[in-house]
Amino acid sequence: MIETPSLVDQYCHGVLRTELGLGTFEAQLARTEGSPAPGTTLFDTQTGFAVRRWCPPLLGLEPHCPPARYLARRRELGVLESGRRLLRGSGITTYLVDTALPGDLTGPAELASVAAADAREVVRLELLAEQVADTSGTVGSYLVNLAEAVHGAAAHAVAFTSVAGVRHGLALAPEPPEPGEVRGAAARWLAGRRAGGELSDPVLLRHLLWSAVAAGPPLQLHAGLGETGPGPDPVALTGFVRATAGLGTDLVLLHGYPHHRHAAHLAGVFPHVYADSGAALMRTGARAATVLAEILELAPFGKILFSSGAQGLPELHVVGAHLFREALGRVLGTWVAEGAWSPADARRVAGMIAAGNAGRVYGLG
Amino acid sequence: MIETPSLVDQYCHGVLRTELGLGTFEAQLARTEGSPAPGTTLFDTQTGFAVRRWCPPLLGLEPHCPPARYLARRRELGVLESGRRLLRGSGITTYLVDTALPGDLTGPAELASVAAADAREVVRLELLAEQVADTSGTVGSYLVNLAEAVHGAAAHAVAFTSVAGVRHGLALAPEPPEPGEVRGAAARWLAGRRAGGELSDPVLLRHLLWSAVAAGPPLQLHAGLGETGPGPDPVALTGFVRATAGLGTDLVLLHGYPHHRHAAHLAGVFPHVYADSGAALMRTGARAATVLAEILELAPFGKILFSSGAQGLPELHVVGAHLFREALGRVLGTWVAEGAWSPADARRVAGMIAAGNAGRVYGLG
Amino acid sequence: MIETPSLVDQYCHGVLRTELGLGTFEAQLARTEGSPAPGTTLFDTQTGFAVRRWCPPLLGLEPHCPPARYLARRRELGVLESGRRLLRGSGITTYLVDTALPGDLTGPAELASVAAADAREVVRLELLAEQVADTSGTVGSYLVNLAEAVHGAAAHAVAFTSVAGVRHGLALAPEPPEPGEVRGAAARWLAGRRAGGELSDPVLLRHLLWSAVAAGPPLQLHAGLGETGPGPDPVALTGFVRATAGLGTDLVLLHGYPHHRHAAHLAGVFPHVYADSGAALMRTGARAATVLAEILELAPFGKILFSSGAQGLPELHVVGAHLFREALGRVLGTWVAEGAWSPADARRVAGMIAAGNAGRVYGLG
Repeated sequence: MIETPSLVDQYCHGVLRTELGLGTFEAQLARTEGSPAPGTTLFDTQTGFAVRRWCPPLLGLEPHCPPARYLARRRELGVLESGRRLLRGSGITTYLVDTALPGDLTGPAELASVAAADAREVVRLELLAEQVADTSGTVGSYLVNLAEAVHGAAAHAVAFTSVAGVRHGLALAPEPPEPGEVRGAAARWLAGRRAGGELSDPVLLRHLLWSAVAAGPPLQLHAGLGETGPGPDPVALTGFVRATAGLGTDLVLLHGYPHHRHAAHLAGVFPHVYADSGAALMRTGARAATVLAEILELAPFGKILFSSGAQGLPELHVVGAHLFREALGRVLGTWVAEGAWSPADARRVAGMIAAGNAGRVYGLG
Repeated sequence: MIETPSLVDQYCHGVLRTELGLGTFEAQLARTEGSPAPGTTLFDTQTGFAVRRWCPPLLGLEPHCPPARYLARRRELGVLESGRRLLRGSGITTYLVDTALPGDLTGPAELASVAAADAREVVRLELLAEQVADTSGTVGSYLVNLAEAVHGAAAHAVAFTSVAGVRHGLALAPEPPEPGEVRGAAARWLAGRRAGGELSDPVLLRHLLWSAVAAGPPLQLHAGLGETGPGPDPVALTGFVRATAGLGTDLVLLHGYPHHRHAAHLAGVFPHVYADSGAALMRTGARAATVLAEILELAPFGKILFSSGAQGLPELHVVGAHLFREALGRVLGTWVAEGAWSPADARRVAGMIAAGNAGRVYGLG
Repeated sequence: MIETPSLVDQYCHGVLRTELGLGTFEAQLARTEGSPAPGTTLFDTQTGFAVRRWCPPLLGLEPHCPPARYLARRRELGVLESGRRLLRGSGITTYLVDTALPGDLTGPAELASVAAADAREVVRLELLAEQVADTSGTVGSYLVNLAEAVHGAAAHAVAFTSVAGVRHGLALAPEPPEPGEVRGAAARWLAGRRAGGELSDPVLLRHLLWSAVAAGPPLQLHAGLGETGPGPDPVALTGFVRATAGLGTDLVLLHGYPHHRHAAHLAGVFPHVYADSGAALMRTGARAATVLAEILELAPFGKILFSSGAQGLPELHVVGAHLFREALGRVLGTWVAEGAWSPADARRVAGMIAAGNAGRVYGLG
């Protein structure tokens, strides 16, 4: 038996504080552009089936009960109590929480309290820059305030995260932009921008990435699934990865799927690169063991991290954790049964991927 | 037991009316550029082995009998009788037939009669445009006749299909071209064209795609395997997919493999996009269950369609159907055995993928 | 039982003649840019675990014994004796050896003697061109000497190999460059070059590839894994592959992974293209059966070749051979058990992939 009693969820979001109906719950099960096609429902997905498998028992129902019955029970208990039962049943002991999503979501402290676990903040760089832009009058003050904000965030956040690759494609020029270039781009962006306006200028995105690299905490880069469009291939990051080698800041490739073998390859070649094995499992459900096994092909076992990638529904934290734990147990257990791995090695690697690697990379307790 | 008594083959071609020898039969087993290398045969492929597994019993022989013995028996029965036995043994109850391939192939009505099944026509856009060009004297008459032809085809065909992505790469500009652009491109094409000349101009291909989108029936787009060259990645279609969202016309991504996970992802993100799970199975044989399972990772279960992708040989319809049925039963059966899916859900999803989704998307019976 | 008593390793390197400590041994287990991250070791990889599984018994130790104990035993026996035991325990009967790597490595003759096997030389084109440049005073003499060197190598080498795709990307213009272009590029390269300088000019790389195609022996092209950066996708080779069709020279796509399905597809479409199923297995260890099965999806069985891809450590030849043999037995054995393949076909295909195909392609004994 491969056991992983304690999980560090190295990338997730908070949970919604509001009661949900069948439709609003369903809408959280996947990231889509538009409502489900007529005659289809997002409950008929791997994520939907995994929620129905793992979550009803935590609320006192049979596995695979119909969605309407599950939602009725969830409302009966109330969003707080059902969230408490779900999160405390997940086996996650530390949550690293990206706080950048809009909506009425719990922050790290509240999530920690509901889950009876630890929680730390992950700061999203693009939102930080947009907030600085909202309160800076000139290019000069924007750049000074941004430097201070990144420095300040580095002091309290456990990691930075960036969606630069999703917004602009990952093939950003790998080098830090010149100061003059940055000033020019900032001037153009600020002049054309209204409060809340999104940062997508490639020069400013690169400036932000390099500010984070200089600041020190691990930098999580979104690649693969993450957003509604097909995610970028992390191989396009190779230039940036090579340019940041040896600078002392670790890079964590988030999501990966369907490019997770490429992300694993980069984690194998570059000492400062790590591969996430999380969100892909939550999205692929009954296939989680295979997807995890694919990550385990090329990534050194000390370079793989667990995450749920959950957002909005505590059910997704539960599903991410249970699918990971079961997948890891099945994959490593099979290799032990085949004689390919020793039982002691399998137990040791399971502990590394579940929590040990994250503890080392993020300097947790 | 997961059973799928009735299959809708949402994309295939007719079968050859001529008797075949060992060499002409072998040449239909794969799409290659040139004859097999010395010392090799196309019977030594997954498709070849699958034909030898499933088809001999339908003609009264042992599975895996040598190709020469199978061909002898096939000739003994005659092309018509062997076709009847094979197609009637496939379990396919409705065929959607792309009639654009050259060669002495049965049309939908004849295929229906031989197979004792229903058959409907799928109209290939590029051939339609080439036929219109053959009979139009001027740019003006070409454009008017084309509009009428598309409109007319929409009234009787069950779907349109396009190889625009294969001919020009899928990264076509996503928007409809301007009328002036279309007239210019048509003038250049018609001026340089001889009767039967192939349409590969990107502006005219886009014009054709958008004419089909406006006409209404589902539009099947070739991506992945389909042709002899390595097929285009459907991710390159994202711009076109986004531009056609909400217009009321469904897009079906054909073949997919080896990019089938990307096609499944698009089907998950965009309500009007569907993923084919067919031809890849016929080509990968003993690996069909894995390939199907990969499609089932991200595609919502209401968005997956079966096809055989068969052309020329009724053996390929048989193999496509048997591989699909066995793969589906094995994949879903395993998930039920593991407790990941409930038996009722598995049976329901099997029926959706085998026939229900196609019935809804194409408005069958 | 699927048995493969004799293996032809169609692509490997020699083994180090020096005694190795724990650190120098570890450094040979993977190709990385920089030392392993703090807290991690390259022994914690699929290759590391596979070495610990298969090699200790050949030196009289328990499988999975700790690395330090294994290294102590290896030093106790000495590099020559341990190499002899390992290589003779691999089951490889013929080695095709790329002799281009730097370092104190055994050549083909010495490898053959240590391993009690046959060995033949594979000539790396780029190194040949660099050696010719080192000894040629003018552009004219360089081009003449190069032509002679390629011609001479073709007479004694069993194959050519090229890293052109790795050095420049695989999307080289497919046609042979014009003589004037070649002279100009050679003049620029020679003028700016010091002895030993690397060839990376795309015109000269193309000239080299086409010289090899004209010379006759099979040409092995590195794609996928091979080097430290993420390897190029062999699909980018399609233009070159199409341009060389029918000229009588076979192309062998090395490594492939993570693009091995694309390489297999090309091997299925083009009669003169072959797919390697080797190095990827050594790198993916416990996952070797799955990776091999993915290659077996589209590649005709007469077009797949075994290699270890090993370099430096005889342990890697052992691991490559054992993983391949076990993976092949398990994959084909499963298909036989499922009724998908006949036992006779499985045995025949196993012999083809293990040795028969390589014997035919390279004209071995």
